[in-house]
Amino acid sequence: MSPMTHNGTLRGAMIGGGPGSMIGPVHRIGISFDPQARLVAGVFSRSREKNRAMARELGIGEERCYDSVDEFIRSEARRPWSERVDWVSVVTPNVAHYGQIKALIEAGYHVVADKPLTATWGEAQALHETVIASGRFFGLTHTYAGYPMIKEMRFRIARGDLGRIHKVVVQYAQGWMMGYLAGAGGAVGTGGAPGAEAPPLPWRTTRAAGGDSCTTADIGTHAAHLVRYTTGLEIRRLLAATATFLPGNELEDDAAVIIDYVGGARGVLVASQSSTGERNNMVLNVYGERGGMEWRHSRPAYLTLKQAGGEVIEIDSGMRSLETLALGINRRPTGHPEGPNEAFANLYREAFRAIRARRAGEDPGPVDMPDIDDGLFGMRFVERVLASATEDSTWMDWSTTQGAAQ
Amino acid sequence: MSPMTHNGTLRGAMIGGGPGSMIGPVHRIGISFDPQARLVAGVFSRSREKNRAMARELGIGEERCYDSVDEFIRSEARRPWSERVDWVSVVTPNVAHYGQIKALIEAGYHVVADKPLTATWGEAQALHETVIASGRFFGLTHTYAGYPMIKEMRFRIARGDLGRIHKVVVQYAQGWMMGYLAGAGGAVGTGGAPGAEAPPLPWRTTRAAGGDSCTTADIGTHAAHLVRYTTGLEIRRLLAATATFLPGNELEDDAAVIIDYVGGARGVLVASQSSTGERNNMVLNVYGERGGMEWRHSRPAYLTLKQAGGEVIEIDSGMRSLETLALGINRRPTGHPEGPNEAFANLYREAFRAIRARRAGEDPGPVDMPDIDDGLFGMRFVERVLASATEDSTWMDWSTTQGAAQ
Amino acid sequence: MSPMTHNGTLRGAMIGGGPGSMIGPVHRIGISFDPQARLVAGVFSRSREKNRAMARELGIGEERCYDSVDEFIRSEARRPWSERVDWVSVVTPNVAHYGQIKALIEAGYHVVADKPLTATWGEAQALHETVIASGRFFGLTHTYAGYPMIKEMRFRIARGDLGRIHKVVVQYAQGWMMGYLAGAGGAVGTGGAPGAEAPPLPWRTTRAAGGDSCTTADIGTHAAHLVRYTTGLEIRRLLAATATFLPGNELEDDAAVIIDYVGGARGVLVASQSSTGERNNMVLNVYGERGGMEWRHSRPAYLTLKQAGGEVIEIDSGMRSLETLALGINRRPTGHPEGPNEAFANLYREAFRAIRARRAGEDPGPVDMPDIDDGLFGMRFVERVLASATEDSTWMDWSTTQGAAQ
Amino acid sequence: MSPMTHNGTLRGAMIGGGPGSMIGPVHRIGISFDPQARLVAGVFSRSREKNRAMARELGIGEERCYDSVDEFIRSEARRPWSERVDWVSVVTPNVAHYGQIKALIEAGYHVVADKPLTATWGEAQALHETVIASGRFFGLTHTYAGYPMIKEMRFRIARGDLGRIHKVVVQYAQGWMMGYLAGAGGAVGTGGAPGAEAPPLPWRTTRAAGGDSCTTADIGTHAAHLVRYTTGLEIRRLLAATATFLPGNELEDDAAVIIDYVGGARGVLVASQSSTGERNNMVLNVYGERGGMEWRHSRPAYLTLKQAGGEVIEIDSGMRSLETLALGINRRPTGHPEGPNEAFANLYREAFRAIRARRAGEDPGPVDMPDIDDGLFGMRFVERVLASATEDSTWMDWSTTQGAAQ
Repeated sequence: MSPMTHNGTLRGAMIGGGPGSMIGPVHRIGISFDPQARLVAGVFSRSREKNRAMARELGIGEERCYDSVDEFIRSEARRPWSERVDWVSVVTPNVAHYGQIKALIEAGYHVVADKPLTATWGEAQALHETVIASGRFFGLTHTYAGYPMIKEMRFRIARGDLGRIHKVVVQYAQGWMMGYLAGAGGAVGTGGAPGAEAPPLPWRTTRAAGGDSCTTADIGTHAAHLVRYTTGLEIRRLLAATATFLPGNELEDDAAVIIDYVGGARGVLVASQSSTGERNNMVLNVYGERGGMEWRHSRPAYLTLKQAGGEVIEIDSGMRSLETLALGINRRPTGHPEGPNEAFANLYREAFRAIRARRAGEDPGPVDMPDIDDGLFGMRFVERVLASATEDSTWMDWSTTQGAAQ
Repeated sequence: MSPMTHNGTLRGAMIGGGPGSMIGPVHRIGISFDPQARLVAGVFSRSREKNRAMARELGIGEERCYDSVDEFIRSEARRPWSERVDWVSVVTPNVAHYGQIKALIEAGYHVVADKPLTATWGEAQALHETVIASGRFFGLTHTYAGYPMIKEMRFRIARGDLGRIHKVVVQYAQGWMMGYLAGAGGAVGTGGAPGAEAPPLPWRTTRAAGGDSCTTADIGTHAAHLVRYTTGLEIRRLLAATATFLPGNELEDDAAVIIDYVGGARGVLVASQSSTGERNNMVLNVYGERGGMEWRHSRPAYLTLKQAGGEVIEIDSGMRSLETLALGINRRPTGHPEGPNEAFANLYREAFRAIRARRAGEDPGPVDMPDIDDGLFGMRFVERVLASATEDSTWMDWSTTQGAAQ
Repeated sequence: MSPMTHNGTLRGAMIGGGPGSMIGPVHRIGISFDPQARLVAGVFSRSREKNRAMARELGIGEERCYDSVDEFIRSEARRPWSERVDWVSVVTPNVAHYGQIKALIEAGYHVVADKPLTATWGEAQALHETVIASGRFFGLTHTYAGYPMIKEMRFRIARGDLGRIHKVVVQYAQGWMMGYLAGAGGAVGTGGAPGAEAPPLPWRTTRAAGGDSCTTADIGTHAAHLVRYTTGLEIRRLLAATATFLPGNELEDDAAVIIDYVGGARGVLVASQSSTGERNNMVLNVYGERGGMEWRHSRPAYLTLKQAGGEVIEIDSGMRSLETLALGINRRPTGHPEGPNEAFANLYREAFRAIRARRAGEDPGPVDMPDIDDGLFGMRFVERVLASATEDSTWMDWSTTQGAAQ
Repeated sequence: MSPMTHNGTLRGAMIGGGPGSMIGPVHRIGISFDPQARLVAGVFSRSREKNRAMARELGIGEERCYDSVDEFIRSEARRPWSERVDWVSVVTPNVAHYGQIKALIEAGYHVVADKPLTATWGEAQALHETVIASGRFFGLTHTYAGYPMIKEMRFRIARGDLGRIHKVVVQYAQGWMMGYLAGAGGAVGTGGAPGAEAPPLPWRTTRAAGGDSCTTADIGTHAAHLVRYTTGLEIRRLLAATATFLPGNELEDDAAVIIDYVGGARGVLVASQSSTGERNNMVLNVYGERGGMEWRHSRPAYLTLKQAGGEVIEIDSGMRSLETLALGINRRPTGHPEGPNEAFANLYREAFRAIRARRAGEDPGPVDMPDIDDGLFGMRFVERVLASATEDSTWMDWSTTQGAAQ
């Protein structure tokens, strides 16, 4: 049986992702890889005009282009079952997540949301409860978990290829924010879709729109999740220092975190949006008793194995010998590049598999997609980093008697 | 105005691309990037069972899943205009191209076909006449012309950044065929979608299915087209030697070509499917009076500028300062990888723009997509290489009094 | 005037560097680049046999091959001035440095010593006083300061190319120690000259031979010095965590350090000898208001400039346009690799220039070589890291009222 | 027994290599790695002043700094045996080689000469006879044969790791000559030691100083030798096209050569000094039945193994597991870069071993250094390329009844 078994069209809606959105198109392309999934409704922008324009571009009729999530929920509820949407993708700014996701989940929708889960740790705890109680499917698009070689890395580490893990170093460096300083606009990095007008300062830099954290929430959570996903290591405690270099930024744009993992491994996580000149540079290194592994986002279809004896081996997501190949995750012959679009498509494929199973009343088995626990994990990470990164930085235990999530 | 202006859904059909096809999924994903284009009919496989299975996977009803191109043409002609397909994608093996494309064009369809154009030079000449006479849109999917940085390279060379061009070196090396020899299956490269069962020998190696040429047609035409597309140089004459290393291969699996371009530049083109261990390794270097440029398919979102004074500058398809950015070709922020899916999507976007214009009775202006002339060019290249590559290799003029195409 | 002006042969002696030594040959080759400098005496090993064997290999007569530094000093003092050595290179294990260097300096010798300066912070303070009081030349071979592109980086940062510096990330990762664990011997890295018999555990792992610190002293000081040398930034305070992963290691083999520099820049320094599979992997990134710079030891003849607008520019130590070229530091045409031998040669060239000036009674002007202050800086770095890296890691000010060096 | 066993000082002389010479310092540094070899005499420049200046810099007295090779031979012959030079290094322009080497060999000297052997094929044949008849040691410094990983590559191919060889692609691209055109001086590449004044056109471009060929002789012979050295393949015939792009160049600055090797392998060799922006970019790829290997001069301490199944393995000259390690060729721990200085030192080490054996009346066994046969091979390669590269390029057999060397 093909891993791409389908049993009918899935209908989706999107909240956010209007003209000028950076992440909206990535979700839409990821969705489009599945020939039987399509968007049929949405709330794309708070601007009525932009909202309508995006609906037209997507071939969605005016009657299913709504002005708010509430209107979406109310109006769609009146449609016959045969027309109703099967899932909703939420790609709005962080501060909107909590209310929107909560309303959608409570209205009975399956949800796929962009990260981070919420704007604050409090919201995350509340939303976690809601989602767990609801029984709805909830998926969080941590892009990097969608890359085949990340899954191969996870498989190999779990199999014991590295032996006991000693050390993890992960860096996620961007420079685009500093483009504002350097007079280059928000050109370098995720500062808006290329060609979009650069705002005076990105929304991520305000507490009102971004929440408690800028860089730790935006990219630090990606890095922290990636370590957890690939190694299975759980954080015991962490020690952090943050900084702000962009004038006008209300939040932090640089974070350095030293981590003690359960079991004795040491971690170093560096997340920075003030690394001028960096172009979305994420690098993960894991070292164990028997060897090391390196994955770089700039060449995501490759995984580097560093052997104790000195050989450095690069493997490729198109190789027939991969362990993960049987899982149907790899979409490409060897030597052909891939990127975030493919990663998102892989995430959505798994989400759709789970949603289709629910629709059919079947058990999907283990679902390989970041979920509400990962969302809570990310916000806990943000909360702990901010708690540690005072003037006198102190080690913060991951779990405490009060407010501990896990 | 957005470069992605749409004015209604485009309906397409696909010939070929059944289960196990390598290139079919790439076309389908490229098509799917356009939210208003979709496949509604097809002839996916000569196997009735596989044909039906693919239609189901694509959400296409049995009534529009046909057993042959003839049946497709006859039956679709009876549909009302409002349901008819706007274009047909042809992704069958080379030997089927000529008859299928000719029939479709003559039936009035716009066609997008995979390369090479046909199996022989004679077919190419005949098909060229048919397409030109028909006035139908015809696009050829030379993947590499769809990459933003290839377009940027073309723009910069045309602007004169390199001055007069002296030298072009292009290499396209694959090793997957040798996988059969090495007992690794057709694992490395384009020998079938990963996971597919490796046939005893790929169809490309037989004259009956592949046509006159294996490697020169399959990847040599990509390389020759890429040079022409980026530099604008026309071939004056060429000198070639071919070889066959895979036992059982009826055709050549290795070609080395020395080229004299009109205007005095020298070219070296190496196309090989017997380069064991190579993973679709295409590298293009162009050198002129003022500097050099390098593009590697392994990192397609980057272009390297080699300055006469020694600086090596890497530019990135997400940079705001790119000349081609205004054209709306780049889809990504800096630092995010991309691959053939995005390249195909770019090709299809341009094809759809041209087809929509025709549907609306408008002039699309210049269409930036390989066309029937490029198809003819490719087959001429194959013919000239094979003509030169006798035991006593001799320079062959591109244009001769007999049989010259251009 | 050529930077290579010579005015007669310099005679040197070496302490340490017997058969099997890793660093001894590097010093000797670095010295040999100067056609008018040569070793004429030495104490190469505590083993009488090995000592004599090395002297023979170096063409040094038995009469100038001594059993101890004391014997060297006593016996050499009886030689006529015309035969006396002009400088002594000390390349023994860390614990021997203090006594040997002190004795040599007090006997009036100019000294070039390998790093780290001493085995403990107390020794470093005492030796600093001795050297300063003596007026003798003292140079410390921080290899990386000898690379032309490091000097170019220093020049460009000092000129303001990056504007105000925000962030510095430096990593120095080795895996060779873990080779012992993995059964690969001390193969990967500096675990003895290749081919040498691997000892059960390297001397660096014992307090008796290595001193207070293993990894922080051995490679952390290199990294800390490199940041200081290239950026001019001074440490205000630091926060560290260390770990030991190699069973039997009495000291630390992994250090993570977060640094606040005077002026507000943030630093992250990772030094690790437990990064299995790494092959002496040192990478330095400096980010400022206007751009970033990266230097990697694996390609030391190149410097990467990361522009705010997205261009990544690689420059090469053979380029005529370099600012440092006029200084006569670059020895190679563009495109030719270089390594530690050339770096050591550059360090020794500068040391010899200073020593020749002293011999001639001239002022050498500014001497561009790590000196006793850098040696003290390194040991202070070790002391501060160890002080911070307790169970409850706390920020340690660089200067305190007691025991502060600078 | 150590591979570096010495039995006394070797005394050498140098012809050429005066101030401004590019290759002279590389020879001198290579020599200096041996603590018991030193230059004691020479003819460094035709300019009396420069000749004397270089002697002073090298610490050589005026009495052994000669005005001509003849004077050198005459005067040195009057010295007592105990002072005589053991070998002579010839590093003059190509046209001077024949006469100087012939005179030195006939005077009984062992000679190490820079490549190419001579300026013409006729000279090469004559010199070959002279050297063979003389019984003197003759070594030719094909730099690349001195790199440990080239030796490892040779070892592994000879062992059969690749199976039967199918294809060899070697490229050697430089851009420095075009620097003259681009107004950047001869900056990029080997156009004189950095900092040296760029002449209006380099001597290589004149028939009077360079001989029959510019680029084919200067770098094409390196590439052709490298293929022969690593693979053992012998040329059966070749097909070439050359071109001249630098205005004023009397000779060729670009060569493309298609090669048929004995046994059926196909080769492509591209040598170019008109590849603007290239920085001494040499890349060798060898493909066989079982896999491929790649070596790049930009990272000479590494060798890349391309497996049929897709893995790409990088090995490092410092690894303990290397086959060539036992030969004592590797001088470095893993991860430390190396360059031409080390390669030359390796070549000289082997030459010195052979010369010492002769001095001691011992058999050195097989000597792993390019010799007079390799010199003849290189000049034959030049002659055959020029013969083939007429307007109508024709395949030229390597051996013909007349004038065939081998």
